[in-house]
Amino acid sequence: MKQINGGVTAAKGFEAASCAAGIKYKDRTDMAFVYSTEPCVCAGTFTSNVVKAACVQWDQKIVESGEPMSAVVINSGIANACTGKEGFDACEATAKAVEKCLGVKYTSVAVASTGVIGMQLPVDKLTAGVETMSKSLDGSIEAGTAASKAIMTTDTVNKEVAVSFEAGGKTVTLGGMSKGSGMIHPNMCTMLAFLTTDLSIEKSLLQYAVSEVVKDTFNMITVDGDTSTNDTLLCMANGLSGNATITEKNDDFYAFKEALAFVCEFLAKKMAADGEGASKLFEATVVNAKCKDDARILSRAIVGSNLSKAAIYGCDANFGRFLCAMGYSGADFDQNDVELYFESVNGKLKVFDKGTPIVFDEDKALKIMQADAVTVFVNMNEGDASATAWGCDLTYDYVKINADYRS
Amino acid sequence: MKQINGGVTAAKGFEAASCAAGIKYKDRTDMAFVYSTEPCVCAGTFTSNVVKAACVQWDQKIVESGEPMSAVVINSGIANACTGKEGFDACEATAKAVEKCLGVKYTSVAVASTGVIGMQLPVDKLTAGVETMSKSLDGSIEAGTAASKAIMTTDTVNKEVAVSFEAGGKTVTLGGMSKGSGMIHPNMCTMLAFLTTDLSIEKSLLQYAVSEVVKDTFNMITVDGDTSTNDTLLCMANGLSGNATITEKNDDFYAFKEALAFVCEFLAKKMAADGEGASKLFEATVVNAKCKDDARILSRAIVGSNLSKAAIYGCDANFGRFLCAMGYSGADFDQNDVELYFESVNGKLKVFDKGTPIVFDEDKALKIMQADAVTVFVNMNEGDASATAWGCDLTYDYVKINADYRS
Repeated sequence: MKQINGGVTAAKGFEAASCAAGIKYKDRTDMAFVYSTEPCVCAGTFTSNVVKAACVQWDQKIVESGEPMSAVVINSGIANACTGKEGFDACEATAKAVEKCLGVKYTSVAVASTGVIGMQLPVDKLTAGVETMSKSLDGSIEAGTAASKAIMTTDTVNKEVAVSFEAGGKTVTLGGMSKGSGMIHPNMCTMLAFLTTDLSIEKSLLQYAVSEVVKDTFNMITVDGDTSTNDTLLCMANGLSGNATITEKNDDFYAFKEALAFVCEFLAKKMAADGEGASKLFEATVVNAKCKDDARILSRAIVGSNLSKAAIYGCDANFGRFLCAMGYSGADFDQNDVELYFESVNGKLKVFDKGTPIVFDEDKALKIMQADAVTVFVNMNEGDASATAWGCDLTYDYVKINADYRS
Repeated sequence: MKQINGGVTAAKGFEAASCAAGIKYKDRTDMAFVYSTEPCVCAGTFTSNVVKAACVQWDQKIVESGEPMSAVVINSGIANACTGKEGFDACEATAKAVEKCLGVKYTSVAVASTGVIGMQLPVDKLTAGVETMSKSLDGSIEAGTAASKAIMTTDTVNKEVAVSFEAGGKTVTLGGMSKGSGMIHPNMCTMLAFLTTDLSIEKSLLQYAVSEVVKDTFNMITVDGDTSTNDTLLCMANGLSGNATITEKNDDFYAFKEALAFVCEFLAKKMAADGEGASKLFEATVVNAKCKDDARILSRAIVGSNLSKAAIYGCDANFGRFLCAMGYSGADFDQNDVELYFESVNGKLKVFDKGTPIVFDEDKALKIMQADAVTVFVNMNEGDASATAWGCDLTYDYVKINADYRS
């Protein structure tokens, strides 16, 4: 497997477009279109929030129906959540506009939204956007990059990645894009991520691979503890690489799963590091926990704590906050087993040793914590399960961004 | 029942003292002492955090032993959490200093701590503080107020209250003090609260009343989602009012429970409004939920969401964030049943009606949200259970306070 240039248009047969539809922003693109020239097998994971956006319910239907998927249309102005029947009508109108322009069935068109909750989408602008984009669909790397920019909201950088790997003697490509960067606390997957591949694979195996990989990647990031109404990950596979269709968990399947894990972790970490107002990536690695679930719960609790996040922002080696977060996480453990370290490119420092605080060099701790990415490394000494979670620090800018998001 | 002046010294036989022991602060009092001239029946609720401070474990033992309690010694400099055996030794040394000074058994002396986690307490300063305070114990209102100030950390105001009520023809007094104001996300009770009463009551009934009342008061506030290692509520009853000992759930019991509920709600709301960096009280009332647990979970989720809190700070009527928080709370409901209002002294405004957003007057919404206390009122229309939760807004100052708490 190797990383290559590009994102959603890296794989064969995928095209993208974007446009400034004027849904919320006046001076930037706010709609994106991803289209496959061949019908795709698709898989998806969606928010666990009881309050699901209209578009989430629309996409769930397509994924569950087993029908092929041909396209996804995204807007980054309005979330289309808490919008009643009018919200569903907007989904259908968007999909029907694609059918009209490109001749694919509207039931094969996914839609995704991110932005303000509780406002109605302007359907005329959406359908006009679809018309514009239908004329400019393009398989170039640049078109994919432009799409990854059009789906940004409070993101400060676009997020895309692509890899190639071998399956059945063929070179297969997998690419993707995602966006954050608030209301990020995954419970199925997180916010919007779109993956495209020219792999040929059975739908059930594609869904299995996606569901498994999401657990250790998108579901292990948190920005603010708020699980969105709109979380959506879609993976489309059009089979154009020419590999023999994967129908069992063979070597090809695992080669794909490895590539998928790389792409998902790459995008998930980028989302965490670009959390609203974030100044640094905050990683927690828990090793030797009693079981995998405990390792996940503990590492997520560490990066999810407001007090931990504020300490990371302030470069304050206030390790008690991390132990406190572990303590209320829901995992059971004995603090007298725990060892805790701070780690970054600037070094590694043990600060807590099996129940007892260590008197440590504050200057060394400060230097470690001043790095752009800081890891809290915890050895539970109670088993052999590990997990890593990713988050970001809590800064003044997070408050600023969210105190007047609508204006 | 009526509210009266004072706090922990309002009830007969309770004395208090405080001193500047120099544990953390140089220019203020940081130790407090509450003492009953008669041995007390006691009840307590404690943090559900797996990582429990040494003092929490010390107090749990006393409460569970059934032995009387005579005093509680509190310091507000160091939490004595994650401190190993040395931390337990500090608890014992403090209690033994009280035994030496006042002749009460050290096993009847509770200790409580709040402050930095993972640092050791300076035992010599603690015991010197006990000696100083033993000489200045005083039953005046002023002594109680001074104690409520000595236990503050990042609190901006002290928190105390007292009430009197009738039981068995006698006037009974109940007073209390508490402190916040960060790491507040109760799961048993929250942070430190000390209640004193001259009521005569059986221990099991005292514990029952405390446990019940805490569920709807201290356990319904949240500042930052972090459940502390040190949460402790202690209630001491010395019987000096002369009422016939309450041994069953009779009228006297319910009169006490009503007084207890008033005192706990008063202190809990004060803690929420004085959350770290808070500029206003943020209240969520959920009515007509399927069951009490759901009502509690939903109202807590609303006031606990960072995005909701930031919107309250920014006076942004971004109601989708509240619905989003309800959606991931864990309670099951249909968004098409929900009605949501904003409410304050400046008016009440419906913004969401059974699945559909309402186009509302933004100026009116702004005026409502600019009040010092803002309520999100939600009618679930699915049952008859209600609950109210209290929190505060998320401000720049929260980040500032917590980015360099140790320094």
